[in-house]
Amino acid sequence: MGDRGASSSECPGRACFELLGKKWTALIVWALRDGPRRFSELQDEVAGVSPRMLSRRLDELSSLGIVTRRQFGEIPPRVEYTLTDMGRDLRPVIETMELWSSRWKPRAMATSEPEQLAGR
Amino acid sequence: MGDRGASSSECPGRACFELLGKKWTALIVWALRDGPRRFSELQDEVAGVSPRMLSRRLDELSSLGIVTRRQFGEIPPRVEYTLTDMGRDLRPVIETMELWSSRWKPRAMATSEPEQLAGR
Repeated sequence: MGDRGASSSECPGRACFELLGKKWTALIVWALRDGPRRFSELQDEVAGVSPRMLSRRLDELSSLGIVTRRQFGEIPPRVEYTLTDMGRDLRPVIETMELWSSRWKPRAMATSEPEQLAGR
Repeated sequence: MGDRGASSSECPGRACFELLGKKWTALIVWALRDGPRRFSELQDEVAGVSPRMLSRRLDELSSLGIVTRRQFGEIPPRVEYTLTDMGRDLRPVIETMELWSSRWKPRAMATSEPEQLAGR
């Protein structure tokens, strides 16, 4: 991406920004930072997410190799989600972004309503 | 965002991820990293972007306070775009993301087609 004349398709960062920009994704990755979590724990931690959406995001993260899903043969069945190495490696990305956001929040949040941008 | 139970609306990072996930945005910010650039220079550097889209993204970045636009009273008129402090501060964010992407690219790129995700 640093190369002059690099086209967007040569910019691997965008896929990741796109992913983390999807509603809930960064919060889910963040909620998994300290180790495995059950579905119900994730629902508690990521307040406001519907079970359907949480399940969808976990499927996406799983197909990208960021999260693994493990089912235990217990009754009732227990399912745990864990970050892969690739997923754990997102931590500095989220932290750097959070630092930027908390530093510049007032101005950014005042004008960055998606509706406004989408309507342009 | 690190707080347990933080809802998405309390996650300022998402606005930024969303912004940088929009096609061309990160490349435009990146192209401005070393100082002011004219519109035509940006078009050269961000290969493949249409003038209309470049102009739209620059407007968005400008309304977010990430880029400033300066017009000089010359003939022909010269317009330059510069990162604000807030915009320059995105550099570590883009760099961290790029590092992650270059490290994990093979697997991420193989399965992260937006079409695939959008269709889920």
